[in-house]
Amino acid sequence: MPKTRIGLIGYGGIGRVHAAAYRAIPFHYGLPAESIEIAGVATTRRETAASAAAEIGCGFFTDDYRELLARSDIDAVDICTPNNSHREIALAAAAAGKHVYCEKPLAMNALEAESMAQAVDAAGLKAQVTFNFRFFPAVMRARQLIDEGFLGRIFSFRGRYQRSSYIDRDKPMSWRLQRAHTGGGALFDLGSHILDLLYFVLGEFAAVHGTLDTLIKERPRALGSAEMALVDVDDIALLHARLGDGTLGTVEISRMGTGATNDLTFEVFGERGAMRFDLSDPAWLHVYDARDVDSPLGGERGFRKIEAVSRYAGQRAPDWTMTPDFMRTHAECQYQFVRSIWNDSAPSPSFADGAHIQKIMAGAERSSAKGGWVSLSDV
Amino acid sequence: MPKTRIGLIGYGGIGRVHAAAYRAIPFHYGLPAESIEIAGVATTRRETAASAAAEIGCGFFTDDYRELLARSDIDAVDICTPNNSHREIALAAAAAGKHVYCEKPLAMNALEAESMAQAVDAAGLKAQVTFNFRFFPAVMRARQLIDEGFLGRIFSFRGRYQRSSYIDRDKPMSWRLQRAHTGGGALFDLGSHILDLLYFVLGEFAAVHGTLDTLIKERPRALGSAEMALVDVDDIALLHARLGDGTLGTVEISRMGTGATNDLTFEVFGERGAMRFDLSDPAWLHVYDARDVDSPLGGERGFRKIEAVSRYAGQRAPDWTMTPDFMRTHAECQYQFVRSIWNDSAPSPSFADGAHIQKIMAGAERSSAKGGWVSLSDV
Amino acid sequence: MPKTRIGLIGYGGIGRVHAAAYRAIPFHYGLPAESIEIAGVATTRRETAASAAAEIGCGFFTDDYRELLARSDIDAVDICTPNNSHREIALAAAAAGKHVYCEKPLAMNALEAESMAQAVDAAGLKAQVTFNFRFFPAVMRARQLIDEGFLGRIFSFRGRYQRSSYIDRDKPMSWRLQRAHTGGGALFDLGSHILDLLYFVLGEFAAVHGTLDTLIKERPRALGSAEMALVDVDDIALLHARLGDGTLGTVEISRMGTGATNDLTFEVFGERGAMRFDLSDPAWLHVYDARDVDSPLGGERGFRKIEAVSRYAGQRAPDWTMTPDFMRTHAECQYQFVRSIWNDSAPSPSFADGAHIQKIMAGAERSSAKGGWVSLSDV
Amino acid sequence: MPKTRIGLIGYGGIGRVHAAAYRAIPFHYGLPAESIEIAGVATTRRETAASAAAEIGCGFFTDDYRELLARSDIDAVDICTPNNSHREIALAAAAAGKHVYCEKPLAMNALEAESMAQAVDAAGLKAQVTFNFRFFPAVMRARQLIDEGFLGRIFSFRGRYQRSSYIDRDKPMSWRLQRAHTGGGALFDLGSHILDLLYFVLGEFAAVHGTLDTLIKERPRALGSAEMALVDVDDIALLHARLGDGTLGTVEISRMGTGATNDLTFEVFGERGAMRFDLSDPAWLHVYDARDVDSPLGGERGFRKIEAVSRYAGQRAPDWTMTPDFMRTHAECQYQFVRSIWNDSAPSPSFADGAHIQKIMAGAERSSAKGGWVSLSDV
Repeated sequence: MPKTRIGLIGYGGIGRVHAAAYRAIPFHYGLPAESIEIAGVATTRRETAASAAAEIGCGFFTDDYRELLARSDIDAVDICTPNNSHREIALAAAAAGKHVYCEKPLAMNALEAESMAQAVDAAGLKAQVTFNFRFFPAVMRARQLIDEGFLGRIFSFRGRYQRSSYIDRDKPMSWRLQRAHTGGGALFDLGSHILDLLYFVLGEFAAVHGTLDTLIKERPRALGSAEMALVDVDDIALLHARLGDGTLGTVEISRMGTGATNDLTFEVFGERGAMRFDLSDPAWLHVYDARDVDSPLGGERGFRKIEAVSRYAGQRAPDWTMTPDFMRTHAECQYQFVRSIWNDSAPSPSFADGAHIQKIMAGAERSSAKGGWVSLSDV
Repeated sequence: MPKTRIGLIGYGGIGRVHAAAYRAIPFHYGLPAESIEIAGVATTRRETAASAAAEIGCGFFTDDYRELLARSDIDAVDICTPNNSHREIALAAAAAGKHVYCEKPLAMNALEAESMAQAVDAAGLKAQVTFNFRFFPAVMRARQLIDEGFLGRIFSFRGRYQRSSYIDRDKPMSWRLQRAHTGGGALFDLGSHILDLLYFVLGEFAAVHGTLDTLIKERPRALGSAEMALVDVDDIALLHARLGDGTLGTVEISRMGTGATNDLTFEVFGERGAMRFDLSDPAWLHVYDARDVDSPLGGERGFRKIEAVSRYAGQRAPDWTMTPDFMRTHAECQYQFVRSIWNDSAPSPSFADGAHIQKIMAGAERSSAKGGWVSLSDV
Repeated sequence: MPKTRIGLIGYGGIGRVHAAAYRAIPFHYGLPAESIEIAGVATTRRETAASAAAEIGCGFFTDDYRELLARSDIDAVDICTPNNSHREIALAAAAAGKHVYCEKPLAMNALEAESMAQAVDAAGLKAQVTFNFRFFPAVMRARQLIDEGFLGRIFSFRGRYQRSSYIDRDKPMSWRLQRAHTGGGALFDLGSHILDLLYFVLGEFAAVHGTLDTLIKERPRALGSAEMALVDVDDIALLHARLGDGTLGTVEISRMGTGATNDLTFEVFGERGAMRFDLSDPAWLHVYDARDVDSPLGGERGFRKIEAVSRYAGQRAPDWTMTPDFMRTHAECQYQFVRSIWNDSAPSPSFADGAHIQKIMAGAERSSAKGGWVSLSDV
Repeated sequence: MPKTRIGLIGYGGIGRVHAAAYRAIPFHYGLPAESIEIAGVATTRRETAASAAAEIGCGFFTDDYRELLARSDIDAVDICTPNNSHREIALAAAAAGKHVYCEKPLAMNALEAESMAQAVDAAGLKAQVTFNFRFFPAVMRARQLIDEGFLGRIFSFRGRYQRSSYIDRDKPMSWRLQRAHTGGGALFDLGSHILDLLYFVLGEFAAVHGTLDTLIKERPRALGSAEMALVDVDDIALLHARLGDGTLGTVEISRMGTGATNDLTFEVFGERGAMRFDLSDPAWLHVYDARDVDSPLGGERGFRKIEAVSRYAGQRAPDWTMTPDFMRTHAECQYQFVRSIWNDSAPSPSFADGAHIQKIMAGAERSSAKGGWVSLSDV
């Protein structure tokens, strides 16, 4: 029986989600509980590590992630720390012979991301990045339909990820608004998700034109403070992009999308059909089949709201509400990683995928700074 | 530290959901893993009980639920068996001094349900029925708004629960189509959910008029069989209802709602506002405020798609997709049960609530059989 | 060249709509302007008749509709007066040998309606009732699809027409709230429309169960008055109904649908498919094809939002917005009437159709009064 | 009594719509029929002019528009001819002292448009361009809300106009695909509409970045022909734009939007609120009020689907369906023109407005050709 023991590094909100998701996998797929086990947890403070271990129900905790890497009863590590520590931890894990699962965005920039991808490859380890939105059944079905040629020649695409988290000018400065901690702004935090979905369903990007802007350029140093601090990352990023085959598309990314809770959507238009996914109603894929003219409805074509019949192949626990939540998509992404270890198959989304997204974001930043289109081969 | 050890009875699809949901609660609320523990599992066959125990990671399993009841390391049982065994198990659990959590519908009929409610009450135990749909944040917010008087005097209401599970006439006979196993048809299986939601947000029902019908009256005894068996339960049930205060409403329940996946919706119309919930897009509550005339939008009132800001009070694991899934609602329902034990508070939805739903369903059946309205005080 | 000269009786809001619609028909269908001409107008007061004539651009006006009936240059009359004068005018028109077009509901009760239908039939005249909602292309397509067998055996149906016009308890008494002027309340005013749509797409009704209620039983005699007057018509009417072939359905009618502007919708569920129409988004018909399993999308069926390709056969003026408005549906209904004269074909919806709707409404009222189902053969 | 006599030039599909719309205005606003009269019609062929006159019911027709301009009983002309004749006719009309109403896009390029605006201004005449989409009540309300400061500081905007008219590669060459006849492709035909709406609600554009593409570069010379002809206009145009105050936005225009019937939408995001309009459901404006935190709903803000209460001020004919159609928006645009003559007020949208749109389009073309942003002050 395959068995993977995981060391979790970082236990903020997203670390807790990863932990819960690992524990749910056996129920989703009818596996023995011990096939996936969190064997230890590391945070930066002893108290938080101790309470994390109690919550997880694991025996080992530490405030030094290197202690986790040193343990022989750990097969893989899961990195849930801030962006600016991803590279250091991933390289150390690779050196220690541990498989690596890492939150997005993979790194602070394209160079870091590539060095990480190379390190795990060189060590023959499995490495995956958390692009959990790929694992909505409707997104998986979108990819499958495109692979099957459902859309025919693709005319154009559009993606958007908008939240409204920063519309209040009184919201104070935080690490998410500082390049030194995050590598980038809305483009990195939200853009990495939507760019990955477009890449997942459509393939590699070749060139981008980016217009980035910081709409609120200074914020109180702390809540209510009169002292102001400069925001040095974007809060809106508009892209035009061309894929490897020349297909044209547009991407909108914003933290200032007033009224948006979590407005992630993509659309693809092709010669034979079209499709649309909307995270605010994620159970469904909207598809249009230009060949419907021969159906019993005659020429009366229109968008169809479909639900993937075989949602998660092999899923055992029923879901009558049919809308997988955030945690379920994480569980699926993590299950994909664990199976790549069990089956010695390629993990997906891989660190190389994460590095491609990082190049698109770097290209958009460069384009916005200098004007004009930027070829990703120059990034 | 409070600690509850549960014995799970039944491990079909829904048993697995309950198990996973118990395990997720500590992550949702930042509790020690051991505060909620599944200490044993019973099914009707030794092999399935053994594999259930492996999946759950618990030490004890049995093919006789009475063995679970006999254990001193078990505080409560969770009944996930077919409807026609609920009463027997619940009464035995009450006799053994175990708190009881039971899947819906509570019983085969109103009389059984009342006897169950009385037994647990007499034993001073906590008893809850699984009406998990109450625990969508949007539904909880609907109830809260009505309690706060947001709608003013209520004019009327409407509920619907439709699925399309039985539209194929070649679908063979099964236990769900036999009164002896289920107590009722669509009215019991789907109706219990929507009736409970209406009861939860609006209060007790006083009288009903029901029109029940069996649209496909016989089905193949098995898939492809030429031998036919009679269906003796409804597959569509239409209700008119009056609440205790005379408020009029309509409820539609059907297994023959072609095209429906899981079409549960309710609407309430009042003097000051209106609201609508739709399970196919469950993150949102649609509300209309008739007093919006004084807002900056002037007289231009309209339905607003709102999202509960404080979704689950105390929730620790973030959910960016904002759409709780089936399992999350079960976890919340179960957490409510566990807390009623920890705090010696009233469980909700209680067995008495489950018995009220059973009376509404009995009234609808009687009305359909004899014609005319039926007062629930006569059921 | 065919030519029809119309005498318009009544010039309130709806009379004006009819007038404008007649004038638009030649543009819609590329006909000479003089093929449809309003040759005269009658109202109850000379001043309003004169200004109506100026607006219409017609030479004759009168405050006595009998003068219109007496004119030889008038082929047909269009009755846009209150419900309680329909019968008198229609019988007089029939006696004068004029074709008759009449607003809905056709009459004050079923008996009146039948006498009107008999009178025009006996006189060999064309007579049509204004059920203009039939003439949305999506509704016409719904009927056509059902006629073609698209739905297969029909399982059940649902209709609703809700407005919020009377939710304010301070809204004063008016003729619409008095049985002597209207014949009935929401059931007559709104119900006649939705009942006609269901009848149009599904066929004759055989029996109904009705629950009617007056939610606000007395209202100020005038705006701000302290003196109250009794409302003697329904403002909500809930129906269960069976069609001639036994098909079961539900209909909701309300003037107290808080938040509703014009919420008319119908749904039909069948063995092979389903459909839904919604007046708040009237360009589209939502259809579900249970046979889509063999399409390129495999088993992934779902509702499709279709637009009728051949919207109005022969329409010449383009409509890029694709949403016909109220006036366009009136023009189409009137064009159908005029063509029945030109081609000596059967008008549709006929006075007999109007009389059937009147019987359904009478059945619902009787059922509500006495309790129990009412067979329309007894009405 | 004011009275305007119009000479209609061109009677294709859109000419017919204009004619019908003029005739409807008196009914919409309770005016004498003769206040707005089509006194003559010109087309390029005598037969079509004659049949147009019969349909309109006017006395004069000609195959030479100059004859219309020479008549003293004509106050204004309405130009419904192809784009490449707009300038010649408008200049001739100005010389003849006739007010001018002209279909969009105003001209073949920015220079032509400006010369037209100058000519009518110099002659002291009223001149208006047909941007009828401004006259949906929801769009008018959007403008009004922004003028009232409802959105506060504007963060960003988005517009789109997509149709699917050219996705079929076998669709043959036509005048719409030839620059010499149209001046431009999708950008001109569809883009002029959405750019005008954004300009109408948000104000002047200052700079654009455009990416134009021709997705199907050659088409059969005629249906089924093997001979191919080159398409020399765009069928997709993606824009980034900055308004005069620096506000950033994105615009997508495409004739290759597979599945789109008439997908025109705009969204504006501001510090205090947001709004969205969608032509596929044009009765509504979706608005979000960031100040709703103080409403009875507490912090639970969300988009509200509102309907303008005072839809068309002074409208007399009721519209229960609440969705004005294409023809109604034309009538309103034309009524605005006629009133500018009656009241000697400024027509809107004026020829200067039309010329601004033309400059935006020219800037987008230049940007696409040379790369980089283009300032409209350089166009």
